[in-house]
Amino acid sequence: MAQKAIVIGASGYTGAELARILTHHPEFELAGLYVSTNSADANKSISTLYPQLKTICDLPLQPLPEDLTEIAQNADLAFFGTAHEVSANLAPVFLQNNCKVFDLSGAYRVNSESFYQEFYGFEHKHPELLKQAVYGLAEWNADKIKTTDLVAVAGCYPTVSQLSLKPLIEEGLLDVNQLPVINAVSGVSGAGRKASLTSSFCEVSLNAYGVFNHRHQPEIATHLGTDVIFTPHLGNFKRGILATITAKLKAGVSDEQIKRAYAKYYANKPLVRVYEQGLPSIKAVEFSPYCDIGFATKNNHIIIVGAEDNLLKGAAAQAVQCANIRYGYNEVLGLI
Amino acid sequence: MAQKAIVIGASGYTGAELARILTHHPEFELAGLYVSTNSADANKSISTLYPQLKTICDLPLQPLPEDLTEIAQNADLAFFGTAHEVSANLAPVFLQNNCKVFDLSGAYRVNSESFYQEFYGFEHKHPELLKQAVYGLAEWNADKIKTTDLVAVAGCYPTVSQLSLKPLIEEGLLDVNQLPVINAVSGVSGAGRKASLTSSFCEVSLNAYGVFNHRHQPEIATHLGTDVIFTPHLGNFKRGILATITAKLKAGVSDEQIKRAYAKYYANKPLVRVYEQGLPSIKAVEFSPYCDIGFATKNNHIIIVGAEDNLLKGAAAQAVQCANIRYGYNEVLGLI
Amino acid sequence: MAQKAIVIGASGYTGAELARILTHHPEFELAGLYVSTNSADANKSISTLYPQLKTICDLPLQPLPEDLTEIAQNADLAFFGTAHEVSANLAPVFLQNNCKVFDLSGAYRVNSESFYQEFYGFEHKHPELLKQAVYGLAEWNADKIKTTDLVAVAGCYPTVSQLSLKPLIEEGLLDVNQLPVINAVSGVSGAGRKASLTSSFCEVSLNAYGVFNHRHQPEIATHLGTDVIFTPHLGNFKRGILATITAKLKAGVSDEQIKRAYAKYYANKPLVRVYEQGLPSIKAVEFSPYCDIGFATKNNHIIIVGAEDNLLKGAAAQAVQCANIRYGYNEVLGLI
Amino acid sequence: MAQKAIVIGASGYTGAELARILTHHPEFELAGLYVSTNSADANKSISTLYPQLKTICDLPLQPLPEDLTEIAQNADLAFFGTAHEVSANLAPVFLQNNCKVFDLSGAYRVNSESFYQEFYGFEHKHPELLKQAVYGLAEWNADKIKTTDLVAVAGCYPTVSQLSLKPLIEEGLLDVNQLPVINAVSGVSGAGRKASLTSSFCEVSLNAYGVFNHRHQPEIATHLGTDVIFTPHLGNFKRGILATITAKLKAGVSDEQIKRAYAKYYANKPLVRVYEQGLPSIKAVEFSPYCDIGFATKNNHIIIVGAEDNLLKGAAAQAVQCANIRYGYNEVLGLI
Repeated sequence: MAQKAIVIGASGYTGAELARILTHHPEFELAGLYVSTNSADANKSISTLYPQLKTICDLPLQPLPEDLTEIAQNADLAFFGTAHEVSANLAPVFLQNNCKVFDLSGAYRVNSESFYQEFYGFEHKHPELLKQAVYGLAEWNADKIKTTDLVAVAGCYPTVSQLSLKPLIEEGLLDVNQLPVINAVSGVSGAGRKASLTSSFCEVSLNAYGVFNHRHQPEIATHLGTDVIFTPHLGNFKRGILATITAKLKAGVSDEQIKRAYAKYYANKPLVRVYEQGLPSIKAVEFSPYCDIGFATKNNHIIIVGAEDNLLKGAAAQAVQCANIRYGYNEVLGLI
Repeated sequence: MAQKAIVIGASGYTGAELARILTHHPEFELAGLYVSTNSADANKSISTLYPQLKTICDLPLQPLPEDLTEIAQNADLAFFGTAHEVSANLAPVFLQNNCKVFDLSGAYRVNSESFYQEFYGFEHKHPELLKQAVYGLAEWNADKIKTTDLVAVAGCYPTVSQLSLKPLIEEGLLDVNQLPVINAVSGVSGAGRKASLTSSFCEVSLNAYGVFNHRHQPEIATHLGTDVIFTPHLGNFKRGILATITAKLKAGVSDEQIKRAYAKYYANKPLVRVYEQGLPSIKAVEFSPYCDIGFATKNNHIIIVGAEDNLLKGAAAQAVQCANIRYGYNEVLGLI
Repeated sequence: MAQKAIVIGASGYTGAELARILTHHPEFELAGLYVSTNSADANKSISTLYPQLKTICDLPLQPLPEDLTEIAQNADLAFFGTAHEVSANLAPVFLQNNCKVFDLSGAYRVNSESFYQEFYGFEHKHPELLKQAVYGLAEWNADKIKTTDLVAVAGCYPTVSQLSLKPLIEEGLLDVNQLPVINAVSGVSGAGRKASLTSSFCEVSLNAYGVFNHRHQPEIATHLGTDVIFTPHLGNFKRGILATITAKLKAGVSDEQIKRAYAKYYANKPLVRVYEQGLPSIKAVEFSPYCDIGFATKNNHIIIVGAEDNLLKGAAAQAVQCANIRYGYNEVLGLI
Repeated sequence: MAQKAIVIGASGYTGAELARILTHHPEFELAGLYVSTNSADANKSISTLYPQLKTICDLPLQPLPEDLTEIAQNADLAFFGTAHEVSANLAPVFLQNNCKVFDLSGAYRVNSESFYQEFYGFEHKHPELLKQAVYGLAEWNADKIKTTDLVAVAGCYPTVSQLSLKPLIEEGLLDVNQLPVINAVSGVSGAGRKASLTSSFCEVSLNAYGVFNHRHQPEIATHLGTDVIFTPHLGNFKRGILATITAKLKAGVSDEQIKRAYAKYYANKPLVRVYEQGLPSIKAVEFSPYCDIGFATKNNHIIIVGAEDNLLKGAAAQAVQCANIRYGYNEVLGLI
């Protein structure tokens, strides 16, 4: 008996990826796509927005009714591709109606009320849920994900950044007195599907943005347990993030120790591919659910390069991976 | 004594090119940049919108006052990068104040009142000016341009299409019973500088649009004097148009005759480069004021490939070329 | 019991797509990847060439031995991604050893000895096989494909061109006295995986090539049964072909007749998606096995736009589709 | 009387830019373009390789004769776009014949014999010239450039890296115990004009390369006088370098001090544009001779973003800037 899955906020790039994945998933049944009540896309088929989905998924983008009870009761699990504040307010209704929530917004990622006011600019109305929310960095929190009904799927930049750094930090290999420097370049889909001058074809080239003030910095620092310098960039491509991370190793740390650290945490994690040699590139991961990691060292410094598809391992695929874990399925089910 | 030139509608891509060209022009002095009164860009320096212009041209984008008399009186010539209907209404004020007008919109390109209602969706309020307007296809109408104060600079697609076809039509080499087929691909800058989903980086790939109903079709057909099938496409690049034109030759027409036809009209036209061999590409013309033309024939059919930078020969550079002609300067002054 | 499938010429872009598809195919087992004996890639894992395949398919690229008997005997079916002349000579060995052949080169596409000399520049050594080869345009030749052991998978441009035109020609809706004009733009992967200046990143923009002399023109004309004007272009993207086709309709042909013609041939063909409205774009088909078709008409002319991923419906996916048909499986098995 | 300038190694991307600049330069006369004797491009017009140069510069690419004396005697200045070892050996001949040399290779950039063996893999045959060579970082070495006949134009990455960092280092604002981290992304033209799989359109996405072993690292470190971590990347664009530099400030350093440092060295340097606010992007500098610099600070850390066109400020334009300085012309002559 397939579990009924719905997507709220289905008109965006992440929503479309969720629709595609869930359509093919052997254990989840895509039972409905929803958009906000006043969306210009309401009642359109998702395949009019995304022609690549024609005949694959032609479900309508249903406008959310005011009373969500029926929708929540009829679904086993819901993916939220909604704005942060919207997600914050949707979650309790679904949880109360026994619908598991996989939220792709930032609304439940950090267990701190003040965080949302400070970095997202809104007052969180459901701080009581922050404690029960589990941070959906799938390779690291599987045990907790298995027992929660509220997964806050990790952000795109935070996923690749943490997957790259966390084994070294956990194993105590980094000298974090010198802050790790994360330089990441994201494809334009990271900005979402909307008309904006910044995302306009002729305006995009390659530039840094959000320098010293991007909200993924505190998300990364909180969950890593150490401060970092994080500089995101917008690149002239559609999908993918490449993160180049420079850090200082503790004296005497060998490449062998680094390899063992990655192997310890990822040897049995099929969606993290640690390179024996060479470094990942965007083309290695675009359109795929993997996070690829490679590294090089010299004179007590390490350069780690991590890559992922921001819409997949950085969003939709990781959300489904978390749902697979929650239901006790193989974590890659429907993903590879 | 330099002629004082101003640009109205200076915030768009064409406006920025005009600002750059006029800044370096040895005979025109860039005396002012203007935007519509309620533009969000009003009073900003143009170089905040176009960082490439920093230190080259940092003039402010002045909001147009209600009364344009003073502006018109203080300028010798004005370039309009405004919307069609706006241009239609601006022209008389400037002409009355002895300011020459080089309009880059479609407002004065065709001498027919009904044309604007049918293809541009507005009623032309100044039909009396249509007769005095000269169509700014510089290589073909230089004599008329020399004596008018109102030049309606040719559209981007029409420029490359007509420059490619006109010599063969004028010399009677084409069998126009079979309509010439113009397939053209434009870079995204052709859609202008504005936030729109269609121009959004992730939405652009390669697609036909405006099939059988683009308003450049009647512009081309009118000025060529023969009907054509024109299919524009949007491509994933910023600048340039490549037009691939298929036509039937009259029986017995030789390559030599075709070469002579092009030579007859363009031998002394420095901004049209007819290829001895090979065919032009976008890279041959981007960022340059040229229109490049090449052709091949077989079995009484001809494929002509024309290429130009849509913002330059298809807009700003041709406008300045027309102004050069109007003032009796070398037509390439300030352009190469 | 899965059928053992091998890929000869597996290092190219099409080979990599075949490796990916066959790895996931529920009825075919990928039993081996081969490259030419002296290939620089021999004995490497395919995932060193294509990092996106890491952990998905890490099979080695085995150098072909001189005696192919054992390889042929151990395989049920073989896909050839080899050069035309190589394919021509490989086919008999495999057929003699009861291995079905799906050739992606041009070596068996046209039943005419002189064709290869004229358009491919080599003398075909196995003309006796040309008669038994079936042209692998899957939607049109399924009955013949079911009973042959030698499928000559249709070329990339010919697939989208014929799928777009054939229903109208079969139903007698076109006035073919006026040659259909096919303007097509292909991504650079169509040129294959090799170092060449033409495919070099900085050299690619948008240009026509092979004008009046591309070998896909006779392939299209032969199988359509009518001459066409075919102008291929190279575009600045990696994958996909967009074909814009202009043709004259017979007098009085209605849009309804055209829709019925497409429906007649494609209503039950899941990999051809005919648009009710709108026109396809590259993004609708990239990374997918579909060919999308849309059209518009005016004044007895029709513009048809067809789109496909050149490496999938134009190569690897269509090859597997043919193999599915040959084995009596659902034609989309392993493809969507 | 114009100075006669020639370009040796004129077929590459830098050579083409030099040809374009020198053609328009009011004081230098482009007197000849040369390629190596056995180049496949020998005797072709440069505009057959670079169609954008048609009618602008159609000079032939002359094969270098064995005896260079005549060529050297007839030129006042020569630009070398040749391979490192070739440049190393060409320089003495030209210098002996009173021809000033502006070498764009790495052959004379560092005054250390062992440097070439270690990082460039060849034994320098003319170490005696290393002492007289002046490093062509134009904004910093103008005084020395004025009096030398051998300018070793700075490399592309080193130019933007040093222009960004040097004022802060000179003013003692950085805590260089923590190595500055330079992450830079270059367009593909940086790899030169040649057929290579790495530069092939379909192979390029975004990736780090040369990690911890790129030869621009020692060039930067030598001339900065402090070690740095330098990680170059290849991006999917043709031209431009964006360098994102993270460094630790000495305690208490204010933004005001940083601004003063930049102003001190660049206030009168027209080709370096320091941003009052905001950060540069590739589009701000492509096709232009500028190096743009912006910065942000937080908690004693600074992020500096520098951008340039790698073929212009990073090569051809800086070479001509050095030549302008050498001859006492305005340093931007012929460049803006």
